[in-house]
Amino acid sequence: MREAFRLGAKQAAQLIERGELRAEALIASCRERIAEREPTVKAWTHLAAEWPEATAPRPPLYGVPVGVKDIFDTHDMPTQYGSPIYAGYRPRTDAAAVALTRRAGGTIMGKTVTAEFATFVPRETRNPLDPSRTPGGSSSGSAAAVAAGMVPLALGSQTTGSTIRPASYCGVYGFKPTHGLIPRHGMFQLSRTLDHVGLFARAIEDVALLLETLAAYDDRDGDSRPRARVPYRDVAAAEPPLPPMFGFVKTSLWDRVDADAREAFGELVASLGDRVEEVVLAVPTDEVLELQRAIGGAEIAINLRREWDKGREKLSPALQARIEHGRQVRAVDYLVALSQIPQLNDSLTELFEQRYDAILTPAAFGTAPAGLESTGDPAFCALWTLCGVPALSVPLMQGANDLPLGVQLVGARHRDGQLLRTARWLVDHVAR
Amino acid sequence: MREAFRLGAKQAAQLIERGELRAEALIASCRERIAEREPTVKAWTHLAAEWPEATAPRPPLYGVPVGVKDIFDTHDMPTQYGSPIYAGYRPRTDAAAVALTRRAGGTIMGKTVTAEFATFVPRETRNPLDPSRTPGGSSSGSAAAVAAGMVPLALGSQTTGSTIRPASYCGVYGFKPTHGLIPRHGMFQLSRTLDHVGLFARAIEDVALLLETLAAYDDRDGDSRPRARVPYRDVAAAEPPLPPMFGFVKTSLWDRVDADAREAFGELVASLGDRVEEVVLAVPTDEVLELQRAIGGAEIAINLRREWDKGREKLSPALQARIEHGRQVRAVDYLVALSQIPQLNDSLTELFEQRYDAILTPAAFGTAPAGLESTGDPAFCALWTLCGVPALSVPLMQGANDLPLGVQLVGARHRDGQLLRTARWLVDHVAR
Repeated sequence: MREAFRLGAKQAAQLIERGELRAEALIASCRERIAEREPTVKAWTHLAAEWPEATAPRPPLYGVPVGVKDIFDTHDMPTQYGSPIYAGYRPRTDAAAVALTRRAGGTIMGKTVTAEFATFVPRETRNPLDPSRTPGGSSSGSAAAVAAGMVPLALGSQTTGSTIRPASYCGVYGFKPTHGLIPRHGMFQLSRTLDHVGLFARAIEDVALLLETLAAYDDRDGDSRPRARVPYRDVAAAEPPLPPMFGFVKTSLWDRVDADAREAFGELVASLGDRVEEVVLAVPTDEVLELQRAIGGAEIAINLRREWDKGREKLSPALQARIEHGRQVRAVDYLVALSQIPQLNDSLTELFEQRYDAILTPAAFGTAPAGLESTGDPAFCALWTLCGVPALSVPLMQGANDLPLGVQLVGARHRDGQLLRTARWLVDHVAR
Repeated sequence: MREAFRLGAKQAAQLIERGELRAEALIASCRERIAEREPTVKAWTHLAAEWPEATAPRPPLYGVPVGVKDIFDTHDMPTQYGSPIYAGYRPRTDAAAVALTRRAGGTIMGKTVTAEFATFVPRETRNPLDPSRTPGGSSSGSAAAVAAGMVPLALGSQTTGSTIRPASYCGVYGFKPTHGLIPRHGMFQLSRTLDHVGLFARAIEDVALLLETLAAYDDRDGDSRPRARVPYRDVAAAEPPLPPMFGFVKTSLWDRVDADAREAFGELVASLGDRVEEVVLAVPTDEVLELQRAIGGAEIAINLRREWDKGREKLSPALQARIEHGRQVRAVDYLVALSQIPQLNDSLTELFEQRYDAILTPAAFGTAPAGLESTGDPAFCALWTLCGVPALSVPLMQGANDLPLGVQLVGARHRDGQLLRTARWLVDHVAR
């Protein structure tokens, strides 16, 4: 099987389980693919030198190669947070998500490129579909590595739109689960309120497989809570009891969406007929962006305060400006913003309980922008990140320059499995 | 039994249980006591018109009269938060602590006077031991009502020193349990980080009885957590396995303690011999007070923002100034202050784990100050409130003007029962 790298994670794990594929062969195939594409794509900051053999009984991710955004601690590889301040830094222990991946038998192939401290200043990674364009960010390397066939799975993160947006630009699935569902211990903390672990894959069943591996209680993450285990793979694979109903949310950002993207959405909505309705949210998007800015600003300022105090000049000017702004946020405005989150969630809960299985909305303003100077605009992701609801970018459409364009599906809190099930229905429906 | 009002809660409940005292007789005795003392003490904002009869089987507080600080919601009495803004306000439901008291058979006798929004501007209540002096605050009425024999138990609160200090001034037990142990739903929120439910009684066994009634998980309080039920009465009544060891903490505030109080502490420490050692805390008190001021200021500003926006002129000038300060606190300083709490707790945990059963420290700078213009200085309570550790004021000593002087005992988080046990040992030791 010379092109084993093309396999999805679930397929590969099954073939290995049945003895039809050796884990070593899969890893070697991915290594070859990396060797071939990496000079162009530049997705990795570090590649593991060797890969340990898991022992029997074989766990669910046995032999499956996984890329890890370079903001997750790894005990055996450097972790540099996309910043020269941490050049060569080696943590002693694995982040919770890395440890869970290894425990499930996954092979950590290496660390992938992140924008500076998972914010917005891009680094060297290019979009595998068009190397003159950005892959998006901040999970640039993870999205690009999965899109380039280097690995079937990768870990990223999202504090505004750092998973959904690069997934859309690179034409892969990007999933931001419910806030707190995947523990963030050992992942660089930018904003406790907004940080999420993000997942990348080329198939929904692989998103579900990775989610089932990573959803866990960990008391080292203050927002993690003990919960019953959900069989995400089974839920995602099941038929919906009824054809799902979608709420199409344009928001005031719609006027800035590319014409090609607007057209593509128009066709998608038309094809869904009476399974979709346009929904106008109660809260103006400007207000959401302001809340997000107050919370994110203050929390970034506190989480980067050591770097600010000791090595400010090694931070990019853009990040310095963001911290400078964050340092001016008043506690009372920060606390007011925090207090809005439950209210925003109540209004979303109503929508989901009363009528819609998922909200359908753009993942970004269009396809990957030209150039590598910016990672694109995350505004379409801000509300869902703020509310901590699950969001998935589905690589369902094409936009300008025949590049992929993600459809963002958003579900109710803690109904992550049902959202994946709804997404599968949508993909099947469009293929029909 | 004409003087039933003098009974402790546990004694009274036992007599009622055995048929030797009727609940109605106890309540009538407390009513008579209130009628006699209230014109001087002014502890109550509202007295209940009638008291419902509990049904069999008789719960643990059956018939026991309880006073409730007027910042806890009651469905059948006004709740005015010590502010003219809420004159005549009647909430629809009971606060969690009130509902738990009623469920345990307790008789809510009425609402007790609180300083304005449980802060520092005093109202009409006087110290029952010397009506020319303050009873302390902000739980002024609860401390005074228990001290005057009007009720054997009362609910208060503490955000800096609002339970420990008035208990010390009035010569009763005041207990601030571990943060989050007693749910605060329906209690006016001044500061989520610092607010605690406080308890007043005239005996340690009664503190334990009330604590056992009120310690409960309630998901409407974000800091409440599910825990195994602890038999606080049994733990508090048990003999310590070894004579306890005390750490005497003076802090930099010691120089401002009254000469009489310093002398009293000197005698107490001398009587404890090798069961006590002086301990110097790692963190300067000034720093603690600053952290407390940043957190409390910002959270008071947010929790009183509606009153500030709509009726600022109805707030006292002192509270306006406090809010004005709180509104200037930067989010980054607030978040830094919050991040210090676990570190402070770590240093306390070490002390408790390695050597001391309890910290022994003043509850206040001396006995109740003269006049009714101030409720006294809460600085000796700030660190323990910030850390959320259990603290008990034990009415063990006398100071200036033959007035009571509390000894503050502080224990490890979630070892509330053991702290009460240690306190009982201390009281027995001093009586010997």
